[in-house]
Amino acid sequence: MPTPLQASLATLDTPAALVDLPRMQHNIERMQARMNSLSKRFRPHVKTTKCTPIVRAQLAAGAQGITVSTLKEAEQFFADGVTDILYAVGMAQHRLPQALALRRKGCELKIITDSVASAGVIAEFGRMHEEAFEVWIEIDTDGHRSGIKPEEAALLEVGHALLAGGMRLGGVLTHAGSSYELDTPEALAAMAEQERAGCVRAAERLRAAGLPCPVVSVGSTPTALSAQQLDGVTEVRAGVYVLFDLVMKNIGVCAAPEIALSVLTTVIGHQADKGWAIVDAGWMAMSRDRGTQKQKRDYGYGQACSVDGQVLEGYVLSGANQEHGILSREGTPDTDIAARLPVGTQLRILPNHACATGAQFPEYHALSHDGTLTTWRRLHGW
Amino acid sequence: MPTPLQASLATLDTPAALVDLPRMQHNIERMQARMNSLSKRFRPHVKTTKCTPIVRAQLAAGAQGITVSTLKEAEQFFADGVTDILYAVGMAQHRLPQALALRRKGCELKIITDSVASAGVIAEFGRMHEEAFEVWIEIDTDGHRSGIKPEEAALLEVGHALLAGGMRLGGVLTHAGSSYELDTPEALAAMAEQERAGCVRAAERLRAAGLPCPVVSVGSTPTALSAQQLDGVTEVRAGVYVLFDLVMKNIGVCAAPEIALSVLTTVIGHQADKGWAIVDAGWMAMSRDRGTQKQKRDYGYGQACSVDGQVLEGYVLSGANQEHGILSREGTPDTDIAARLPVGTQLRILPNHACATGAQFPEYHALSHDGTLTTWRRLHGW
Repeated sequence: MPTPLQASLATLDTPAALVDLPRMQHNIERMQARMNSLSKRFRPHVKTTKCTPIVRAQLAAGAQGITVSTLKEAEQFFADGVTDILYAVGMAQHRLPQALALRRKGCELKIITDSVASAGVIAEFGRMHEEAFEVWIEIDTDGHRSGIKPEEAALLEVGHALLAGGMRLGGVLTHAGSSYELDTPEALAAMAEQERAGCVRAAERLRAAGLPCPVVSVGSTPTALSAQQLDGVTEVRAGVYVLFDLVMKNIGVCAAPEIALSVLTTVIGHQADKGWAIVDAGWMAMSRDRGTQKQKRDYGYGQACSVDGQVLEGYVLSGANQEHGILSREGTPDTDIAARLPVGTQLRILPNHACATGAQFPEYHALSHDGTLTTWRRLHGW
Repeated sequence: MPTPLQASLATLDTPAALVDLPRMQHNIERMQARMNSLSKRFRPHVKTTKCTPIVRAQLAAGAQGITVSTLKEAEQFFADGVTDILYAVGMAQHRLPQALALRRKGCELKIITDSVASAGVIAEFGRMHEEAFEVWIEIDTDGHRSGIKPEEAALLEVGHALLAGGMRLGGVLTHAGSSYELDTPEALAAMAEQERAGCVRAAERLRAAGLPCPVVSVGSTPTALSAQQLDGVTEVRAGVYVLFDLVMKNIGVCAAPEIALSVLTTVIGHQADKGWAIVDAGWMAMSRDRGTQKQKRDYGYGQACSVDGQVLEGYVLSGANQEHGILSREGTPDTDIAARLPVGTQLRILPNHACATGAQFPEYHALSHDGTLTTWRRLHGW
């Protein structure tokens, strides 16, 4: 006889993106408690889920403001009542009218820049429209992506260009994306300190030059969970912590039972001689993210679990076509797989990368501890 | 002064998925002409684009029926007037009511199976609802995924189970997905022959046992474009040929100027010392597909082109975060990149895999030869 959970999941078509609510709530509280103990404001990056009920849970737990990766996210979450929004991708000229419209409606939108050229474009547009944009300067503390290095001359030039143009210099921010390449507590703590020290140094240089720098914003999920101290930092950002995934498990900042996102799938066939079960979660469901490929354990396209969420140790999604996944045992093929996982069996697959897998789905199915399901839309596109 | 094309593309927000209509039409006509010359019916796989105007162009050129990867696609394209639809993923029990509803509305839906267990489930459901489903048997001709091998005993058992249960045995189908791992005309022609011979052999075994097998359906884009003869085959299926991509270029079945899908992006910053331009097409736009990684040429996350579509030889999307792409020159860094591609420059990126990149976008922007743009919605989710 099926459990209430099994009966509930049996009503869903597959593939479906499941969010385990007790796990999600645990993850939210874990991060918020850490930020509270460090006395830092927390501004979650909502690009991971793009989903209003999840963002509300983050704010209810104590988050102050949000970070977004697109202005479409900013528009949706502002419409849903969030006013303090950081758009953390370098501002492009053609998006300035959209940012202006948000501010004119009352959104406390902050935008970012990392060059004199871009700062000049923002200032010119702002002057023309009599809008003092709040601009933060992006700092590069790990050579990973964009940003100005803490000691670069350009830092002060950008600050002066913004102020001279009548803009508000809101602060500095950095993101140590290199933390994703580490997997020991020592290396992660060192990267967190590098991220902190570099961003604080940039703030000090601005202040020493007589420029304002109220906010010092740092963060990534691995560094936020590994920092020993955050002196000089005013706020922390992190995104994937809310759901976690196998990449984060390999990095060492979560355990499998903390991963709150899984893809519900159905066995649709077998190649018994090869030990394969064919499931209806292919790469269209899991995404093409192979983030664990270069990590200490490669989970293929995901870790298989029973429909109840128990890890099936050694069984992974070893291959994926668009709507077909190949589920197999690592090492020796399981030639009994057709008996063990017959056609029609529901399974859950933990993803490599929660941000990428979530984006494949128009909605999450939020699963309560009693098996109740609620459909939560998420944003798609730009 | 901008050309009409440049002026037109400057009106789009980025990232945006562009479909070059003259290239797409050329690709459609190229495949259809080949099928006509081989005197084979052609049933395109519309999972690549999930987009009604594109499917209409394929049908207008001579395609007969379509192939889909989800029943949601079947529902949409049936609503848009297509009746002859093959759902080419092994039928799951819980989807049978949805398939039944489509047939009851007049859709000539064909479903597939590759096991006695699944055939029995279909037959039982069909009998219960007095519906003679048209079922095709999936054949495994290359060990790539699902299907029954041509010489397996199960082939006849499945055929008998379907007929005994009152279902219609419509034929056999196969897909030589292994063709994606090849890159010489000789190897591709040999794989096409293996695909053809295996599927025809399965049909012959069914017929020799007194079972009907009107349809013999084969195909993948590489084999469809490489087959020397298709004796015994009645129809061919292919999907990605309509847009093509860098994986297909590496395989050798298209040239870069035939790739009809690109992602329009804007330069938002630089790391001049590293020779990087930062663009607003990250993996959320390109997808995480790294299909060229193991091929003879690795394009990272895509090949950069000018906004006019001219390949910028040697410039690729070497890295990707969610909304950031890192564009760089292969080999020696281009330390003049900030002058060559200043902030605000629009570029186009050719994707590794058109099916995966398209799925990241809610719509295509169809670009005519004169620069006119039309927005075409595409299907998302299940």
